Amino acid sequence: MPLSIVRTVADLRAQVTAWRKAGESVGLVPTMGALHAGHLSLVTLAKTKAQRVVASVFVNPTQFAPHEDFDAYPRDEAKDAGLLESAGCDLLFAPTVAEMYAPGFSTTVTVSGVSESLDGAARPGHFAGVATVVSKLLLQCGPHVAVFGEKDYQQLQVIKRLVADLDIPVEVIGAPTARADDGLALSSRNAYLTPAEREAAPSLAAALRDAVERLRDGVAVDRVENTGRAAMERAGFSRIDYFEVRDASSLTHLGPGPITGPARILAAGILGKTRLIDNMAV
Amino acid sequence: MPLSIVRTVADLRAQVTAWRKAGESVGLVPTMGALHAGHLSLVTLAKTKAQRVVASVFVNPTQFAPHEDFDAYPRDEAKDAGLLESAGCDLLFAPTVAEMYAPGFSTTVTVSGVSESLDGAARPGHFAGVATVVSKLLLQCGPHVAVFGEKDYQQLQVIKRLVADLDIPVEVIGAPTARADDGLALSSRNAYLTPAEREAAPSLAAALRDAVERLRDGVAVDRVENTGRAAMERAGFSRIDYFEVRDASSLTHLGPGPITGPARILAAGILGKTRLIDNMAV
Repeated sequence: MPLSIVRTVADLRAQVTAWRKAGESVGLVPTMGALHAGHLSLVTLAKTKAQRVVASVFVNPTQFAPHEDFDAYPRDEAKDAGLLESAGCDLLFAPTVAEMYAPGFSTTVTVSGVSESLDGAARPGHFAGVATVVSKLLLQCGPHVAVFGEKDYQQLQVIKRLVADLDIPVEVIGAPTARADDGLALSSRNAYLTPAEREAAPSLAAALRDAVERLRDGVAVDRVENTGRAAMERAGFSRIDYFEVRDASSLTHLGPGPITGPARILAAGILGKTRLIDNMAV
Repeated sequence: MPLSIVRTVADLRAQVTAWRKAGESVGLVPTMGALHAGHLSLVTLAKTKAQRVVASVFVNPTQFAPHEDFDAYPRDEAKDAGLLESAGCDLLFAPTVAEMYAPGFSTTVTVSGVSESLDGAARPGHFAGVATVVSKLLLQCGPHVAVFGEKDYQQLQVIKRLVADLDIPVEVIGAPTARADDGLALSSRNAYLTPAEREAAPSLAAALRDAVERLRDGVAVDRVENTGRAAMERAGFSRIDYFEVRDASSLTHLGPGPITGPARILAAGILGKTRLIDNMAV
């Protein structure tokens, strides 16, 4: 089946309504485009959960700070559409900024708690932008399930929280992070890395893997975090935003001693001019 | 048909889903209970717009400030249920606070601009509480139309704004304010008035009617506002929150000269221990 592309909420709703009337379930995979194998694995997972899959491509301006890479963020719709079609996606929703934010737009969805530390501290306003645009996409499309990558683990928890809190009738599913053979988490921003930086980048995943093992061995949280930050420094990260062991769902601090329940290690920092993030389950 | 009462989102959704599957349209009338003829007129209007009507009764704690009348707010579910049944309402959704706000609840919907002045200034946090709970009620019920009273005119504009901005798939309808024979806008809070205050209270509506006429005669906005505030003082209001002429949809300031387009006059103040609000179209 060829991939259809729609650019308005009205056209999106017309197609989804037709599917629902025909008794077909619908999955949504929200993305910012610049698709890679990680995104395609989300589509593949969505296809196992719903009969029809919609992917959205929208580089959302409100989740970028003024100094961040909104303008430089890679965009290639033709390539994205080809990849989505090959992955079996049924519909691409690619709205303009004007379609998403009409004149007079003035509503914000904020999530306290889970969004406040880590990327919420490093990128003020980021999660309000994410929470608002994801609320819109879910309500525009009205899918049965929506799939998000665990690569943005804090984002996934923020979305699960807002969907539960606002009673948005959708099942939110997290998909495992896709990685290169050397362990580097796939990311659209990896395209910014120089060859030398690309060679150093897998050390972030290696530091996380090492931390997982040490936590399982009963090493104290504060020691594991210190070792992880040191590994990021040695790898050449010029800024370390965090390397932290957190509760797996509330993202509250754990430690300083050994962990006793489900935990997640989350790390972020700047390598060269590129901000990399990654995380792993313990 | 006897009125059914449900207390959980799951039960509400089961009933609404059954109606939708049967091809019936659904209207929602959100209320805080203590129902009077004004609320029943919303139900009557909803019945002209949808085949099934759900009323919710939920005194929402998050839209009351700590010093306000949350605990004292009148509650009489049996009486409310009887009135709703007589008005032809099909279902009463009466959730507990715990059903609406589970442990860990941390999401807020805020609307800038239209919510910031008037009651937004007089009651900090009020409209964030309203916007969040109304978002929840709309998403819990999933109605085709939702009816709100023009009595809370700023609230109606806030809700129209958030529904458009978040793409909640519902038509929001405003219903005219129901009034006593002497002009006083019906309100659950009128029950707080002493006999003497009740006698003075219609002067608020009289001042608004007078202001409408003067604006139509071309009198300048600032003169009309001053006259209105003076009338409220003479009527015994101990605090005047506002008496203002605003743009009918954005609620931005108009004046100081005569108006040139659709306007709304909004007024609020405290009479005795009771806060009264009212508004009229110009």
